[in-house]
Amino acid sequence: MSGKTVEFFFDFGSPTAYLAYTQLPAIAARTGATIRYRPFLLGGVFKATGNAAPWVVPAKGPYGLRDMERFAARYGVELVRNPAFPINTLLLMRGAAGYEGSDRFIPYVDAVYDGMWRHPRNLDDLGELADVLTMAGFDPTEFRSLIEDPAVKERLKATTDEAVARGAFGAPTFFVGDEMFFGQDRLDFVEEALT
Amino acid sequence: MSGKTVEFFFDFGSPTAYLAYTQLPAIAARTGATIRYRPFLLGGVFKATGNAAPWVVPAKGPYGLRDMERFAARYGVELVRNPAFPINTLLLMRGAAGYEGSDRFIPYVDAVYDGMWRHPRNLDDLGELADVLTMAGFDPTEFRSLIEDPAVKERLKATTDEAVARGAFGAPTFFVGDEMFFGQDRLDFVEEALT
Repeated sequence: MSGKTVEFFFDFGSPTAYLAYTQLPAIAARTGATIRYRPFLLGGVFKATGNAAPWVVPAKGPYGLRDMERFAARYGVELVRNPAFPINTLLLMRGAAGYEGSDRFIPYVDAVYDGMWRHPRNLDDLGELADVLTMAGFDPTEFRSLIEDPAVKERLKATTDEAVARGAFGAPTFFVGDEMFFGQDRLDFVEEALT
Repeated sequence: MSGKTVEFFFDFGSPTAYLAYTQLPAIAARTGATIRYRPFLLGGVFKATGNAAPWVVPAKGPYGLRDMERFAARYGVELVRNPAFPINTLLLMRGAAGYEGSDRFIPYVDAVYDGMWRHPRNLDDLGELADVLTMAGFDPTEFRSLIEDPAVKERLKATTDEAVARGAFGAPTFFVGDEMFFGQDRLDFVEEALT
């Protein structure tokens, strides 16, 4: 048991961050590490760093899908292409920032990920989002006031700024202490750092 | 013994392609596969696909170096940062296209890689390049006529065009049949495909 912590910076819009999310609990169990979930806004990271999603280079699109299928098969994880992609994740990530640190965080993240990459819904549509949240036991009215809370908006912005200040340029990004790792395909190095 | 072939598209300017070059012979030995070396011009691929080197996003620069150090340590490979980087590799790649298929190909590639990533030289400087080639037993005068040969120029261009037509957008790129793999960090998938 290492007693170490891995910080996991993620945005629901990144399917590779979803792959990482499915693998981290087993890594934490094997190493005795703690996962600190850090919801941030990937669009803000891209804007601050001058980076962009891979698929802005057209040839990266089909290859990226194939590459994710290969990892999903290796992990035995279901990853369904969301026809509504790309979805603006601002409100979804505010929700994650709102539930951060509470016992509702993981159920919320599971519910949103389910609507993003397992049973794809158009989560840009507030009606569809309300549906997904209701089915998972959340109150959509409570959710709406949460994501309008200035402290929640500020927390999401602060986490995004912190990630950029520490060197992040995309998602998922992991930190073990000061060591940064980018991409779900670096989880083996993350596990080494946690051991 | 699989009897399969892995095509390895590389440019001397890519340090991750160099890492792949150091690992492929062992993968071929383990799987009984044949390596087909495909020198291409990464700059041409970038131009054709709208892609760019990772370090055009400033935050990717320091992280990319750290990431390569981690893989070099895992592989037990020496990878020294070349202070002259980025180097225009057009003439170097023409040389590789010129020796392609001959028994001088691997000694040439070894010599150039040595001057790029093991004992860094400014290979943009034709005098330094002549030095490196002479030390490796090549005749610089013969080399200069080789890289001016229209058939050699055309071969390099044709390989680059072929890679783009098959979906490549960067280096290193591998093909096992129709299956494309991008990045030295996908060598585990390449090995699976060869097995």
